[in-house]
Amino acid sequence: MKRDYYLKSVNEEEALSVLDNLFSEHYETQSEVISVYNSIGRVPFKSLYANVSSPSYNASAMDGIATKSKLTYEASETNPITLYNIQYIEVNTGNVVPLEYDTVIMIEDVEFLDESIKIIKSHALFENIRPIGEDIVKGELVVPKYQKITPIIIGALLSSGITKIEVIKQPKICIIPTGDEIVKSSEDIKDGDIIDSNSYFMKNELELLGAEVKILPPQIDDYDTLTKVITKSTELYDFIIIGAGSSAGSKDFTYQVIKNNGTLYVHGISIKPGKPSIIGEINNKIIIGIPGYPVSTYISFHLLVDHLMNLFTKQRNTKKQTIKAKLSRRVYSSLKNKEYIRVQLGNVNNETIASPLKRGAGIQMSLLKSDGFLIVDRNIEGYERNQMVDITLPVREPNTTQTLVAIGSHDIILDVINDCMHDDGFKLASSHVGSFGGVLAIKNKESHISPIHILSKNNTYNKHIISEYLDKDYHLIEGIKRRQGLFVKVGNPCNIRGISSLKGDVTFVNRQKGSGTRILLDQLLLKTSVKAENIKGYDYELSTHTQVAAAVLSDRYDTGLGIESVAKRYNLEFIELAMESYDFLIHKDTMKLESYKAFIKVIKSDDFRNKINTYEGYLLEHPGKKII
Amino acid sequence: MKRDYYLKSVNEEEALSVLDNLFSEHYETQSEVISVYNSIGRVPFKSLYANVSSPSYNASAMDGIATKSKLTYEASETNPITLYNIQYIEVNTGNVVPLEYDTVIMIEDVEFLDESIKIIKSHALFENIRPIGEDIVKGELVVPKYQKITPIIIGALLSSGITKIEVIKQPKICIIPTGDEIVKSSEDIKDGDIIDSNSYFMKNELELLGAEVKILPPQIDDYDTLTKVITKSTELYDFIIIGAGSSAGSKDFTYQVIKNNGTLYVHGISIKPGKPSIIGEINNKIIIGIPGYPVSTYISFHLLVDHLMNLFTKQRNTKKQTIKAKLSRRVYSSLKNKEYIRVQLGNVNNETIASPLKRGAGIQMSLLKSDGFLIVDRNIEGYERNQMVDITLPVREPNTTQTLVAIGSHDIILDVINDCMHDDGFKLASSHVGSFGGVLAIKNKESHISPIHILSKNNTYNKHIISEYLDKDYHLIEGIKRRQGLFVKVGNPCNIRGISSLKGDVTFVNRQKGSGTRILLDQLLLKTSVKAENIKGYDYELSTHTQVAAAVLSDRYDTGLGIESVAKRYNLEFIELAMESYDFLIHKDTMKLESYKAFIKVIKSDDFRNKINTYEGYLLEHPGKKII
Repeated sequence: MKRDYYLKSVNEEEALSVLDNLFSEHYETQSEVISVYNSIGRVPFKSLYANVSSPSYNASAMDGIATKSKLTYEASETNPITLYNIQYIEVNTGNVVPLEYDTVIMIEDVEFLDESIKIIKSHALFENIRPIGEDIVKGELVVPKYQKITPIIIGALLSSGITKIEVIKQPKICIIPTGDEIVKSSEDIKDGDIIDSNSYFMKNELELLGAEVKILPPQIDDYDTLTKVITKSTELYDFIIIGAGSSAGSKDFTYQVIKNNGTLYVHGISIKPGKPSIIGEINNKIIIGIPGYPVSTYISFHLLVDHLMNLFTKQRNTKKQTIKAKLSRRVYSSLKNKEYIRVQLGNVNNETIASPLKRGAGIQMSLLKSDGFLIVDRNIEGYERNQMVDITLPVREPNTTQTLVAIGSHDIILDVINDCMHDDGFKLASSHVGSFGGVLAIKNKESHISPIHILSKNNTYNKHIISEYLDKDYHLIEGIKRRQGLFVKVGNPCNIRGISSLKGDVTFVNRQKGSGTRILLDQLLLKTSVKAENIKGYDYELSTHTQVAAAVLSDRYDTGLGIESVAKRYNLEFIELAMESYDFLIHKDTMKLESYKAFIKVIKSDDFRNKINTYEGYLLEHPGKKII
Repeated sequence: MKRDYYLKSVNEEEALSVLDNLFSEHYETQSEVISVYNSIGRVPFKSLYANVSSPSYNASAMDGIATKSKLTYEASETNPITLYNIQYIEVNTGNVVPLEYDTVIMIEDVEFLDESIKIIKSHALFENIRPIGEDIVKGELVVPKYQKITPIIIGALLSSGITKIEVIKQPKICIIPTGDEIVKSSEDIKDGDIIDSNSYFMKNELELLGAEVKILPPQIDDYDTLTKVITKSTELYDFIIIGAGSSAGSKDFTYQVIKNNGTLYVHGISIKPGKPSIIGEINNKIIIGIPGYPVSTYISFHLLVDHLMNLFTKQRNTKKQTIKAKLSRRVYSSLKNKEYIRVQLGNVNNETIASPLKRGAGIQMSLLKSDGFLIVDRNIEGYERNQMVDITLPVREPNTTQTLVAIGSHDIILDVINDCMHDDGFKLASSHVGSFGGVLAIKNKESHISPIHILSKNNTYNKHIISEYLDKDYHLIEGIKRRQGLFVKVGNPCNIRGISSLKGDVTFVNRQKGSGTRILLDQLLLKTSVKAENIKGYDYELSTHTQVAAAVLSDRYDTGLGIESVAKRYNLEFIELAMESYDFLIHKDTMKLESYKAFIKVIKSDDFRNKINTYEGYLLEHPGKKII
């Protein structure tokens, strides 16, 4: 009786790194274009940027009447104001607010008379109006690449005017059940037959993971037959799963077929159940051998095939959640293998009790009954009765450690950085609270990095913040330079030339106090003879560049201050006033983070530089360099 | 301008109970039969019991040789034993072990000679054999009704010989987008148009929840058109979702159509976003009005439609998981509404920081960026910066509080009870460790209830356990009576009449010490002249009734002790010896549990009584009655 014994078993980590190497050596991620309407669960191949803004016009946020805010300023309970029907229009929620109007009064606050209305409250600029781009701004990142499409993403893509997307092709996988005793169904089962249930378990799991799956008919244990079927399948499928026959028995031919027609990398992984697993390659296609006992199938499949599917679909391996539980029985385990023990959980006397289920690899029902796994690592003998243990649940942990938190001033480059960071599985989560909001956030340790652009009295940018507001534990990292200037309508009808043009009838919209742009304006004003109190609209504060753009697009306002890239996106003309530095404050502890290292890697990369150069108004010198 | 204002807003709980009432009044759960192969995500209408056992024969658990265990007893390293090729056969993992053999020796422990083998280890009865039914026993509960089909369940059903199942019909749902401004796609969008993204968000969510969904073309805001479309839809669909138009604006006709053609139950729910939600009924069909702002849509949909889908598919509303996080900004909320604030999570300095995102109901992007919700209840003003708050995550909690933990002796009635408890959303998780194992478990507070059948020296059942092993904090609850007796082959070839027949050449298989059945045997023996040491096989201990049945089916064993229902399932003949009491030990704290109340409700029910009466060998007197 000729018989090969197992090659030396490898541990889980070694097995997965074999898959990593095989994948990067032999595979290239492929894409296809599909309709957003049928994209649920698919994975975008590239980041998706909005084609249109949402709303795509200034929209009423209420049912009511749209009018000019200045007509309402005097209104009060004691001084009702009458508007005639040429001074307002009725609007419903979502309706266009025509450009000549800039505020909406709620229906409940309006008294309707015959040809006029009475109002008793003053209304501010843009009150009850959703300015163009409030939700999504044309050109903004909607979905970073590799983020799986969910129903809410489908909604956002449609709102962004995106109906076709490029997604990663679904891998095509072939499952080959083997064994003389395997029959497809229970209809003519006789003693010694085993119904093929594993293939259908795997097929359904794979489809949920986003694969196209074909199950071949069960194959008999015959070397030549298997060689033919497996070799043929390597021509048609991305990878191949061979069910059972992965052991070293006299009728287990899988490893021999791989050895003689390709390369056998792994035969035996030190896990229990699941030990007789195989990783090999034939014709540059990965072959996975999955053992036949149902529980072994389950463990081996979720270890190897989940990982491989993540490689194909560019998903990161995230950790499973665990909970603490009290073990109801002593559990022994061999030192040689990492063992997966199924447990049932129950709450007795306010304690979570984990009761181990039957351990046999053939006990499929233990998987149905189990709430989670007690995983006993190699070199651990087991656990005592009443010991508190970690039970691994079948849900993933929310992953916050891969997220770099950015709080401060907004710029579109944050989207670009976030996009690039996704390549390495990291995420930039940015909140936009203005530059001084960012300084406060980093001081209070609420952010990892704070993007700021604050001009000092000495005409330098950002450096003074560390000495004036922070301490030596903080650093300033170089970002980018960007052009600030005045937004004006196409053709520049008011003939605005610079700050000194902000006089007479020219109407201006301002930014909020504490924003870098406001600080810049006030500094620029000091150098001219223009006085703030003489600028029409100096007191109208909006809180983003895009709101300023929306205001200037309307009839009511002639100009406002903002960055060039936003002006271009809104098809406004731009009069340059300054080149400012947009840099990043960090705390020294930030530097230790993997997510920060990914951030620095991105902003120093050529890829980032090339992407930024497709926008107007930016200059890159030494992004990522430590300034202080 | 004619205008109805909101009816009085109701809170979430009131809105959901309106749905509960409407559903139970107008709907009946419908079923259809489908193939197991295409059943992923579907919900079984009835509990599913195994058609065949798995394995369906005694199967080798190893590659090796099958032989008779008694031939191996003398074998040791110093005393190798030779077996000739008529005394064994070679088997691979999964092969049938013919009935004349009762043990398997691993290939590694066998030295192969020309026409014989040498072995150096003794092997016990059933060593390395998976007895018939080890995983699944014919007639056993595989999947309780209403448990959603997963890939592993598909595997288990196929192994149980089940290929067709009766499942709950997918509800058919119609989504009607409304609003003059709604356009289907972005291709010809003009100012004032809104791309219909909400319908596709809802459709995709509904399909994931298991519904069949049709989106009608966007309808203009016209009372007559809407009346026609909605009324017509009530004839074709199970329920209807009307997108937008759910407010009380001059063009919001939904509530008027419902009022005039059916009944309007809810107009306004005190949540934010999501307030202008509607619940009504026309032609006995539920109509849900979902507000049009994307975030309102999201909140209102997940509140109302998730709940309704759970009613249709008999799923329990389970709680979402929460994590503690430190709030990065002060958050105000109105006292009037329960507010859902989207937050981003990040880990800064080993603390989870929650940063609130933009709050506008129109900010779809806040949903894409959010990791969870800060839910601010009504009557709470908000939270301070740096306050620790609960963030609700988009994953469900593992639900252990609905589980009643039963540890002790096994009987098929536990499956029936579990099945019935699912009707009320509870679960019975049973571990089978024998009666005395159950006593220990309840004493150590590891179980809620412990099923036992232990005969005392005074010929009473179970009562003595409380005084001898437990204390006054424990109670005994009546279960069922069941017939114990001897299993014999069809035709009773050894002419076994009772315990006194256990002599001479009759071979017997015993149960493990501490099991109720073993205690019964030993008590019965005391009343006869038969001595344990004279019974052939008295020392062969198996640990379940089904293993005993499998042994008696084989050629090697003539009889064994077990319960009638198992004998019948294995087509064995049965010689009654005793009617025993199978009761439940509980701790007094168990009585407070909702899951225990559900358990008692079940065992007192007619439904349970009828189901048990379909099995043989049971007698029900007063199940659920407190004995002590």
